[in-house]
Amino acid sequence: MIVGQRIRRPDALDKVKGSALYIEDVAVAGALVAGVLRSPHAHARIARLDVFAARNLPGVHAVLTAADIPGKNLIPMIQNDWPVLAEGVVRHVGEAVALVAAEDREALAAGLAAIKVEYEKLPPRLEMEEALAAGEILAQWKVRRGEAEVALGRSDVVVVEGTYHTPYQEHAYIEPNGMVAIPEGPGVVVHGSMQCPFYVQKAVASALGCDLSHARIVQTVTGGGFGGKEDAPSAPGAQVALLARATGRAVRLILTREEDMAVMSKRHPGRIRMRTGATRDGHLVACEVDYLLDGGAYATLSPVVLFRGTVHACGPYRVPNVKVDARAVRTNTVPSGAFRGFGEPQVVFACESQMDRLAERLDMDPLALRRINALRAGDETITGHRLTTSVGFDEVLDKVAEASGWESKRESFPSHSGLVRRGIGLAACYYGVGLGAMGKHLNPAGASVVVSADGSVTVAVGTTEIGQGMITVLSQITAEALGCPVELVKIMDPDTSRVPDSGPTVASRTTVMSGNAIRDAAAKIRAAMEPVIADSGLNWRDAVLLCVTKQVGLAAHGWSVPPTTTFDLETGQGEAYICYSWSANVVEVEVDMETGETRVTKVWSGHDTGRVINPTTGEGQVEGGVLQGLGYALVEEHMLRDGRILNDQFSTYIIPTTLDTPEIKAILVEHEFPWGPYGAKGLGETPIIGVAPAVTAAIHHATGVHLDRIPATPERVWAALRARSVEGG
Amino acid sequence: MIVGQRIRRPDALDKVKGSALYIEDVAVAGALVAGVLRSPHAHARIARLDVFAARNLPGVHAVLTAADIPGKNLIPMIQNDWPVLAEGVVRHVGEAVALVAAEDREALAAGLAAIKVEYEKLPPRLEMEEALAAGEILAQWKVRRGEAEVALGRSDVVVVEGTYHTPYQEHAYIEPNGMVAIPEGPGVVVHGSMQCPFYVQKAVASALGCDLSHARIVQTVTGGGFGGKEDAPSAPGAQVALLARATGRAVRLILTREEDMAVMSKRHPGRIRMRTGATRDGHLVACEVDYLLDGGAYATLSPVVLFRGTVHACGPYRVPNVKVDARAVRTNTVPSGAFRGFGEPQVVFACESQMDRLAERLDMDPLALRRINALRAGDETITGHRLTTSVGFDEVLDKVAEASGWESKRESFPSHSGLVRRGIGLAACYYGVGLGAMGKHLNPAGASVVVSADGSVTVAVGTTEIGQGMITVLSQITAEALGCPVELVKIMDPDTSRVPDSGPTVASRTTVMSGNAIRDAAAKIRAAMEPVIADSGLNWRDAVLLCVTKQVGLAAHGWSVPPTTTFDLETGQGEAYICYSWSANVVEVEVDMETGETRVTKVWSGHDTGRVINPTTGEGQVEGGVLQGLGYALVEEHMLRDGRILNDQFSTYIIPTTLDTPEIKAILVEHEFPWGPYGAKGLGETPIIGVAPAVTAAIHHATGVHLDRIPATPERVWAALRARSVEGG
Repeated sequence: MIVGQRIRRPDALDKVKGSALYIEDVAVAGALVAGVLRSPHAHARIARLDVFAARNLPGVHAVLTAADIPGKNLIPMIQNDWPVLAEGVVRHVGEAVALVAAEDREALAAGLAAIKVEYEKLPPRLEMEEALAAGEILAQWKVRRGEAEVALGRSDVVVVEGTYHTPYQEHAYIEPNGMVAIPEGPGVVVHGSMQCPFYVQKAVASALGCDLSHARIVQTVTGGGFGGKEDAPSAPGAQVALLARATGRAVRLILTREEDMAVMSKRHPGRIRMRTGATRDGHLVACEVDYLLDGGAYATLSPVVLFRGTVHACGPYRVPNVKVDARAVRTNTVPSGAFRGFGEPQVVFACESQMDRLAERLDMDPLALRRINALRAGDETITGHRLTTSVGFDEVLDKVAEASGWESKRESFPSHSGLVRRGIGLAACYYGVGLGAMGKHLNPAGASVVVSADGSVTVAVGTTEIGQGMITVLSQITAEALGCPVELVKIMDPDTSRVPDSGPTVASRTTVMSGNAIRDAAAKIRAAMEPVIADSGLNWRDAVLLCVTKQVGLAAHGWSVPPTTTFDLETGQGEAYICYSWSANVVEVEVDMETGETRVTKVWSGHDTGRVINPTTGEGQVEGGVLQGLGYALVEEHMLRDGRILNDQFSTYIIPTTLDTPEIKAILVEHEFPWGPYGAKGLGETPIIGVAPAVTAAIHHATGVHLDRIPATPERVWAALRARSVEGG
Repeated sequence: MIVGQRIRRPDALDKVKGSALYIEDVAVAGALVAGVLRSPHAHARIARLDVFAARNLPGVHAVLTAADIPGKNLIPMIQNDWPVLAEGVVRHVGEAVALVAAEDREALAAGLAAIKVEYEKLPPRLEMEEALAAGEILAQWKVRRGEAEVALGRSDVVVVEGTYHTPYQEHAYIEPNGMVAIPEGPGVVVHGSMQCPFYVQKAVASALGCDLSHARIVQTVTGGGFGGKEDAPSAPGAQVALLARATGRAVRLILTREEDMAVMSKRHPGRIRMRTGATRDGHLVACEVDYLLDGGAYATLSPVVLFRGTVHACGPYRVPNVKVDARAVRTNTVPSGAFRGFGEPQVVFACESQMDRLAERLDMDPLALRRINALRAGDETITGHRLTTSVGFDEVLDKVAEASGWESKRESFPSHSGLVRRGIGLAACYYGVGLGAMGKHLNPAGASVVVSADGSVTVAVGTTEIGQGMITVLSQITAEALGCPVELVKIMDPDTSRVPDSGPTVASRTTVMSGNAIRDAAAKIRAAMEPVIADSGLNWRDAVLLCVTKQVGLAAHGWSVPPTTTFDLETGQGEAYICYSWSANVVEVEVDMETGETRVTKVWSGHDTGRVINPTTGEGQVEGGVLQGLGYALVEEHMLRDGRILNDQFSTYIIPTTLDTPEIKAILVEHEFPWGPYGAKGLGETPIIGVAPAVTAAIHHATGVHLDRIPATPERVWAALRARSVEGG
């Protein structure tokens, strides 16, 4: 069986050799270079926008403003509030005001410089609490289950309360956003770095006013996404397409790192107030959550990011009384958007910090508290979703506890003293796989499978390889489903002309959805082959040859529609997702009591992700997710002044390097999900979600201080240590 | 109903504006230029081939010989005798000996010049009779029906006998052959001008030794094929692919016109001996045919070209006793290959000339003789194929006779005298649609149809647009089959990664085979839509939107397998093709009796092609085919010396110009073929087949001289006139 094998990534060689062609490497002969004139203000009226001089510069081929858009000045997203180019008003620093296409970089710079814009500054709203007070609410959701307030008031209930703050996080993909558009017929072909070709397609077709079939989008090799290339690339996609149509030439728009960091989406900053109550023997009784996200200037994906945080707000536990109120607000900052974890890391930081505090208050081991309350098959989530199958949380907890030597370390570490203290912390989470109740018509996915006469197989899907290992995993699923050697499978670059809209490459849905679509197509092909090959015992190549000789057509489109979920948005009750992955991290730290510096020495990261199609890519997902989670926990945050991001380079926005990387032990637990391909669920996001609270729990274990804000920078840890010593003193 | 409408060609605007991108226009950044070192000899041993100096020249990136081919040195075709690069021996002038890829044209020229080759000349075999005598037979077929020799000896049978010669014909496509190969993974993507992407794919995969899926072939806009881009492009395709793999760079190989004319395939020269016997009242009794084709140095498609001529050798008539012996021989000349009509124009020139002579001998009107013997439903062809349906030959004859005023002109023209004499002639033919009994696993065709959420439709097929109107016709068939507006249909550039091997774009099979594959795919999509839209009365776009909302997958692969034919190659008896198109041309000429110059003043060209999907493209096929037939009849021929083509430019190889174009009246008769899409058959080739004998018949009518050799140049007509006057004198 090829599923479950550690085959080498088919795309590895080109990537390590440097021969993979990223969009910057794709040389399109005669392509113009494009740039975007961007707002320097967080909020202003455009009093005058004069492009006459710029248009007449030598080497400048097009200067476009909102008035020059033949279709709609709109990037279609949930609330349709996001313009391709600012029209009358700019609402965040870096918002696109005008586009220039020019012969070369010099002409481009001259063209951008020659555009005359006069702004009348308007008062910006920069803080989310301020926006909330002003009623600038982009989206709101709630969960109502039992009577949370009543339960929290009960005399037998111990309540902990906290307010937590989480920062912006930068996706820090290795490749900035970039697109090349080539005019074709009445439309364009756009090649570029992205997660979601069908999102870009909608944006391009909308801006050009053309049919979707004439907005053909092809994903090039993409240097990381992490959600940052989910919604955000629709903007450069539409922009470069407009310039290609306006000039009749191929046009390249590649963002600089600084530009990309300054204006593309980020993880939503969050503020979470939470009250958690349990009986003295550790049974959770109620949880009340007030969850606030800063959506930035446009809604983009804030409603669905908020939704996922809302329904997962109390962690993977049985909580009979729940009240969650979640809101995303509009501010004059860069739009926040999709980011690995998608609204969960913020609320899970709060929720799991609460569990840690509750354990302390109850004088219980934090792991024991989790075990008491862990969701199991037969239980209901806080949305009333009764879990029937593939609930491996218990086993995950057991495995990480055992592997990490949890019990002995929890006991022995506090006895240490000295400048560097050791601690071990734990945090858990669960994650609804796929788009779930909010997905609607984006839920399904397609695949086209074509078998050549020599038995080699060409597969097209609508989801993308963004480093996560899709090509590897789908090759294995194809080989398994067809019964062919995996070396014969070729996964094509995603191309919107090959399959119907297959939704986005997000939400850990790719293995399950594209995998099942491939299985559907493969089953049709096998059904066509069987009458011909019968019990011939032929190997794959010979079987295909026989079928070709017999004129059997070996191609099929497959389609995957997930099981129906029902959900009531008024009460927040129902099946939020088709199934869940389960995760727990144990993190071991050393904290320098003098500097506040935290060094993570080891992480045990356990996940029930159903059947693991490829353990190596699975472990890779865990290692990458944990490291990104450590960045979130310890070092990553954006500094803003007047709505402008001040740290827009990797020299000022710090992410973990190899030297900061601890040993990460991935532990994969396989509670198969019957509907998933060969029992698989999803693994893209759980590795990042529960890292930060495990780090802060470990810091607490080492030092005794609770942190209610991340990143846990040395300054912040030092300040907490100092505050405690002052209190203590 | 959109089928039958005169919609505008979707590809017309780009072609007339000059914005269509032919392979020469496709700018691939950083591409190397390639060239081929070719044999100056018709037959020689390669005593020495030294590429050392060439390889070390600045700007030269690769010099390849047969020894450098990683896969097989073989272009896979019927007999597998055709090398990518000559190995030890060259067998025709222009045969490829070495390949060079260089930075620019100067370096390329230097590289080619620096290759040292020493040849030892071998005696070439240049004439087909000589090759026949030497037993150099590439292929042979026969038809045996009744007792032809016995019947021709009967005393009540009038026999005419003749030996006919037909020349090389140049395809004279407007765009020379060209390919660009781009390395990708372990293989290449090849873009280029071609008819048969799957032929090129086989050649590339064979030469590289890679899987078919890694030899991805994409047809660019192609400036005409006429058969000349059926087999021949496999050579430059394999060659440019080898250079791309060897250099790791994109490589362009564009043939000059002179090179293309000198070394690419041509129509086979033919020599046909024929004895035709009929009763005195004009009933055909027997026909004996000795059919010889010059295949050139390699077999390429000669076996199947010969087959088609063999089974159609006696024209569209009932002939109870038939003996056909057909052979293609190997000579040291450029390989002959596919050409519109595919072995029929040669033999039909003989057969129809015989009919004209027989009518003269019987003192009958040539049309009357045809009517007596015309094949009708219920009759059998000379291969014993009983015709049951879609036999519109009678109506075609009636329509062209009526439209041309045949009877009155046949009577009145001979009474004219003077220097310029008028004549009217007729010839007929039939044509088996598709690959038929020789097609085997190449018969089927596939299609992928994808419907986007806005109702626009993307269609991929494995056959190609080569100017014949495929895009137009398949757009209409798609719209008809799906029930969508034709403006919403987009036909993609053919790409071997999108559908299984769908056979070649030849044999007038595209409308029928790709059309039915699209209908198959569309039927699956409609079947998925029907339960959702039911009797809602929604228009197409709204119906699609509803289906998308309901998560219905709107994509399918279709597959078309023609009805089985049975054929016995030993006797030449059976169903040679699935059905036949029927054609008759009436040609009116003026012949200058002093110079021998023939001017065609009008042509009435009638065709039963089944249902006509688009009358405008149908008429276009007829006009183009007739004009190409007029070139064959009157002016086109290649002159060779020592196996070298002397006239390799359009200044020396003459084709008809606009000024030579008479009024061509296309008459389309629709006897529907039930299995064809909406009753369609094929129309690509019948327009050219019966033109030359109609021209020579008209010359005979005008002047009284019979010509047994084409083209009927002024010199040849003048010589015939002079010979008669000498005889007469």
